[in-house]
Amino acid sequence: MDHSDSLEQLRQRLAEFAAERDWDQFHTPKNLAMALIAEAAELVEHFQWLTPEQSNRLPEEKLAEVRLELADILIYLIRTADKLGVDLIAAANDKIRINETRYPAERVRGDARRASEYD
Amino acid sequence: MDHSDSLEQLRQRLAEFAAERDWDQFHTPKNLAMALIAEAAELVEHFQWLTPEQSNRLPEEKLAEVRLELADILIYLIRTADKLGVDLIAAANDKIRINETRYPAERVRGDARRASEYD
Amino acid sequence: MDHSDSLEQLRQRLAEFAAERDWDQFHTPKNLAMALIAEAAELVEHFQWLTPEQSNRLPEEKLAEVRLELADILIYLIRTADKLGVDLIAAANDKIRINETRYPAERVRGDARRASEYD
Amino acid sequence: MDHSDSLEQLRQRLAEFAAERDWDQFHTPKNLAMALIAEAAELVEHFQWLTPEQSNRLPEEKLAEVRLELADILIYLIRTADKLGVDLIAAANDKIRINETRYPAERVRGDARRASEYD
Repeated sequence: MDHSDSLEQLRQRLAEFAAERDWDQFHTPKNLAMALIAEAAELVEHFQWLTPEQSNRLPEEKLAEVRLELADILIYLIRTADKLGVDLIAAANDKIRINETRYPAERVRGDARRASEYD
Repeated sequence: MDHSDSLEQLRQRLAEFAAERDWDQFHTPKNLAMALIAEAAELVEHFQWLTPEQSNRLPEEKLAEVRLELADILIYLIRTADKLGVDLIAAANDKIRINETRYPAERVRGDARRASEYD
Repeated sequence: MDHSDSLEQLRQRLAEFAAERDWDQFHTPKNLAMALIAEAAELVEHFQWLTPEQSNRLPEEKLAEVRLELADILIYLIRTADKLGVDLIAAANDKIRINETRYPAERVRGDARRASEYD
Repeated sequence: MDHSDSLEQLRQRLAEFAAERDWDQFHTPKNLAMALIAEAAELVEHFQWLTPEQSNRLPEEKLAEVRLELADILIYLIRTADKLGVDLIAAANDKIRINETRYPAERVRGDARRASEYD
């Protein structure tokens, strides 16, 4: 990966952050997956009582909180991928290719059912 | 953001993917947060019965599955951030700065308690 | 707890189920919490692209699936509580009393903000 | 369901709690599923940096917190089931019967792989 890339820079910065605190001992993929879903839930919590429309136009103060929840998710996602030796960008591009085959635009237009429900 | 950046390229590709399928109507931040946590749970499910040690050395076939779960999380994270107008990289750098203040290396070395438990 | 009680009967049945399969070794509270949230996510997945209104009137077939997701959550909740020696019914009654103090009816009527946002 | 049953009593108490606060308008199954998983994540958060062994012997103060997280999960589970007209006890008994068929004791003893991995 290009070392000037933003995600690669974050990966390095987070690895140093953990190393300086001797936290690698806690950062097993199992534990990181738990931390990641706990952060995802803090995102969910912001939206649970809102209508879908309200979730589209958050008050400024709430948006600032949500922004940092998104950051937390990205941080643990990068750490998990790093510990497993996964290149997140390459994985996402692979997955998009799979989704393009699974959900051909002309077949699923305007329809959000899950893949398994098409078969 | 630099348009040659990997995350920015993914953001654009995913926006086009949704537009071609007329899926933006479903992609409210509320719904995307739900999709994101559902993907995070698929990651958790891979690790739930493993020891922390086993989670560090996944069999090749399982790692390939886990890699695509990580991709799914990144995909929904990018979509959520895009819908909310959040720059993920800037947000993550801001959050790391907050964490550096909250968890000074000399104070928390080798100790994984949560911030609230230090006070 | 009254041994004729439905929840106590389930607790016993699930303890026997695990014992017969020698699964207690996997059923640490840590692992059970992961299994529980993975089941909660399968519930979320059923609702993620539905409008709130659609979620109120599920087609019969989907309701049958959702019913079994709720069962899975209850099963892991009972197992977790059992392993921790927690009486779920007593805990829920204690928590409702706390909520009655935290959310006085006359103060929060028609308002779903979280407790922390009232202060 | 027997009206002296503990779960049925909780169901009624929680329905009254919501009605007195005019909260039924927020309690769609979609929103309740989000609240439920957010509570499940608070449980996960307690365990994320613990070893499996540590999760088996929680300090008294932490156990008291975990007990109330379990209560929160049960509360939202009962509300969701109530809104969908699902009898949780009957559903759990049905699911256990399915699991007995899917995981015959003699076949899966001491082995925690998921059902799909046996085939």
